[in-house]
Amino acid sequence: MNLILLSGGSGQRLWPLSNNIRSKQFVPLLKNDRGEHESMVQRVYRQIMAADPQANIVVATGKRQVSTIKNQLGDKVSVCVEPCRRDTFPAIVLACAYLADVKGVGPREPVVVCPVDPYVDDSYFAAVRRMAELAGPGNPNAAHLTLMGIEPTYPSAKFGYIIPAGKDPVSRVVSFKEKPDEQTAAGYIARGALWNGGVFAFQLGYLLKAAHKQLDFRHFADLQANYALQKRISFDYAVAEKEPDIAVMRYAGEWKDVGTWNTFCEVMSDPTIGKVQMDETCRNSNVINQLNIPIICMGLQNMVVAASSDGILVSDKGRSSHIKPYVEQVEGEARFAEKSWGSFTVLDVQPEATTIRIALNSGHRLTYHSHEHRDEVWTIVSGLGRTVIDGVERPVHPGDVVAMPAGVRHTLIADSPLQAVEVQIGAEIDVADKQKYDWPL
Amino acid sequence: MNLILLSGGSGQRLWPLSNNIRSKQFVPLLKNDRGEHESMVQRVYRQIMAADPQANIVVATGKRQVSTIKNQLGDKVSVCVEPCRRDTFPAIVLACAYLADVKGVGPREPVVVCPVDPYVDDSYFAAVRRMAELAGPGNPNAAHLTLMGIEPTYPSAKFGYIIPAGKDPVSRVVSFKEKPDEQTAAGYIARGALWNGGVFAFQLGYLLKAAHKQLDFRHFADLQANYALQKRISFDYAVAEKEPDIAVMRYAGEWKDVGTWNTFCEVMSDPTIGKVQMDETCRNSNVINQLNIPIICMGLQNMVVAASSDGILVSDKGRSSHIKPYVEQVEGEARFAEKSWGSFTVLDVQPEATTIRIALNSGHRLTYHSHEHRDEVWTIVSGLGRTVIDGVERPVHPGDVVAMPAGVRHTLIADSPLQAVEVQIGAEIDVADKQKYDWPL
Repeated sequence: MNLILLSGGSGQRLWPLSNNIRSKQFVPLLKNDRGEHESMVQRVYRQIMAADPQANIVVATGKRQVSTIKNQLGDKVSVCVEPCRRDTFPAIVLACAYLADVKGVGPREPVVVCPVDPYVDDSYFAAVRRMAELAGPGNPNAAHLTLMGIEPTYPSAKFGYIIPAGKDPVSRVVSFKEKPDEQTAAGYIARGALWNGGVFAFQLGYLLKAAHKQLDFRHFADLQANYALQKRISFDYAVAEKEPDIAVMRYAGEWKDVGTWNTFCEVMSDPTIGKVQMDETCRNSNVINQLNIPIICMGLQNMVVAASSDGILVSDKGRSSHIKPYVEQVEGEARFAEKSWGSFTVLDVQPEATTIRIALNSGHRLTYHSHEHRDEVWTIVSGLGRTVIDGVERPVHPGDVVAMPAGVRHTLIADSPLQAVEVQIGAEIDVADKQKYDWPL
Repeated sequence: MNLILLSGGSGQRLWPLSNNIRSKQFVPLLKNDRGEHESMVQRVYRQIMAADPQANIVVATGKRQVSTIKNQLGDKVSVCVEPCRRDTFPAIVLACAYLADVKGVGPREPVVVCPVDPYVDDSYFAAVRRMAELAGPGNPNAAHLTLMGIEPTYPSAKFGYIIPAGKDPVSRVVSFKEKPDEQTAAGYIARGALWNGGVFAFQLGYLLKAAHKQLDFRHFADLQANYALQKRISFDYAVAEKEPDIAVMRYAGEWKDVGTWNTFCEVMSDPTIGKVQMDETCRNSNVINQLNIPIICMGLQNMVVAASSDGILVSDKGRSSHIKPYVEQVEGEARFAEKSWGSFTVLDVQPEATTIRIALNSGHRLTYHSHEHRDEVWTIVSGLGRTVIDGVERPVHPGDVVAMPAGVRHTLIADSPLQAVEVQIGAEIDVADKQKYDWPL
């Protein structure tokens, strides 16, 4: 099966564990069967591979998520990178062009588009596989577009609804309804309506034909090169609303939209993660501590506490979905980020100094760069590697110190997993103060 | 007036803002009239000086608190240091011997002993002054021991009670009652009983006479030198229980024992301190953030949240008095401490590396020392100073780096307020791994 996984999201709703670099689908708070922590994207990827070991998966995402996706899913995963943010239609077209032009998928082959972050059981991906069959050339009754309709469990005002023509497992779609109020939703459900889970299948040629009518491109490479020139247009507007021949397949298995701390806590395997003590009077509370200082909790009722180097959230679970405006007021850059080369964690910010812990993966290196307005000092803490300072390469070991005054070109190369403490010193410390250079060696 | 301020306390009950170095009386969460934050000990000292600018104050405390007391009250404050922990009687005798032998206080002069951490209004220290007069040679009816009896506001089971002979402002004491249950307490109060606030006055010669009968010493210097040899004995057992002639003076002004987060929150001037956002649904909650990452709070009801480099507390206010066993389970040394030379803050602890921020006060220096099992690196971040490395002195400026492999003798001297980041590297990083040397220059 060909599968496009849409990985978006701003990362505010699971703050402080998600941030503007790490969206909620990358937060490793779930557990697999072996008891190892995994993120939503790792869970979904694992479930897909279990349902179809030959699945042809492409993750459609923006530039900022690429490093995290490769760190979490491995270097072999296919990632289709949007050079900038457009809307869902250009993003899906780009991934379809990638499938056609890079992966050689034929025009009659079915493709399923699926969000990367539903919390589901294994029957969901069996259903996704069935959707690919329904949409494919083997089905004489195939619709142009086949949706997944999730059997509602309550009249939610948070989801869009699909009104099907009948109550058969697969039927034609009569209409779509945007998020209604609860009373209206109850009426829809009485008429057999289904939640729109954002999963849809089509034959690749169908979508590319629609794409060529509305966007200006020839193939994947030129679409990606000229992506910024494409219009912002949603898939619903560009395709679904104009298409008269849409089918829906019912799905009644487990499905949760874990977009807020409140819903995320429901699927966490443990009430606490990290250095946490809860007294015996705590009830229905979750505490996630990514800092290496302890958290003591006493008398919590229906609360979520989450701490990372970006900040600390203490919230009533019911209130936690209202976090967005508060996160927007928090100043500053993310203090933890996964990068293509490893990760960094900000340890301390003073008026004229910032201290950072850098972890480089073995075989990786920083870009070769300099800063205009700050000096930097690396203290190598563990691992073996090399520095290049103004073109001169030297080996480094734990305990070695590398001083880089402003203007000096520098990089660090890891020959094993390597950690360093970086002290930045200057009156104007700014992430934008970075000049990159070609690799010098 | 001669005043002995007893400054003890283990620092567990206001964790994580107090720790085994910084007791609760040093936590700067109150505010003075000028809007500046102050600690309990600073507030009490300020109130005493307002009540009696000539007050002869000696702070009786253990070694670990001396630096913090001098940092908070200034270098001129008299501190009588217990070389080790004994009980209250040896501690009070040591301070009395200090008053007699170091400060030249005469045997008939009255002395008042007072805990350093009551939250009181100014009338309290007017009452303390009155107690000194009542205990002094000018009062023909002076008792050997004069206590302060606090008018109870409710039948508390947390305090000891004094049963007076009558309801006059000053009367003789009939008996003492240890912490009763609430019902018994209500009965005591009906009979005119008072809370024992731990304040008492006597003539200096009276106490020294009792001291020489029970302890083996001649004067202050030899008592301090042989302090560890003295028996552990409480003031109540050694003096109060044996003394038939005790008076009590009623006090009806504001008096709070702010020993727990719950009571401390009542006297905090602001509901939040530090980088904190609370949403509009928070009620009766206090948040103190000493970290430089933000805290977002939503939907808190009757909660206290406190964060420092030692850890994070999230507690229902009513539960917060039960913190002790949880703090005892928290491993490790204090991660923030005031020292005679300034302060340190632990920024990061990794398996083979610890990163610390050091702040040296101008004109101060570290001890001259070395470590056997770890290398250290200083990056000077702000200020001017000098290092001495294996006997060689060099000036240092911001951006300078000083590497000190294991075994190398080193110190840092501040010629202005100076900050440095220290990275410690080694498999066995332990505060006990420190060899001190005589000053080399």
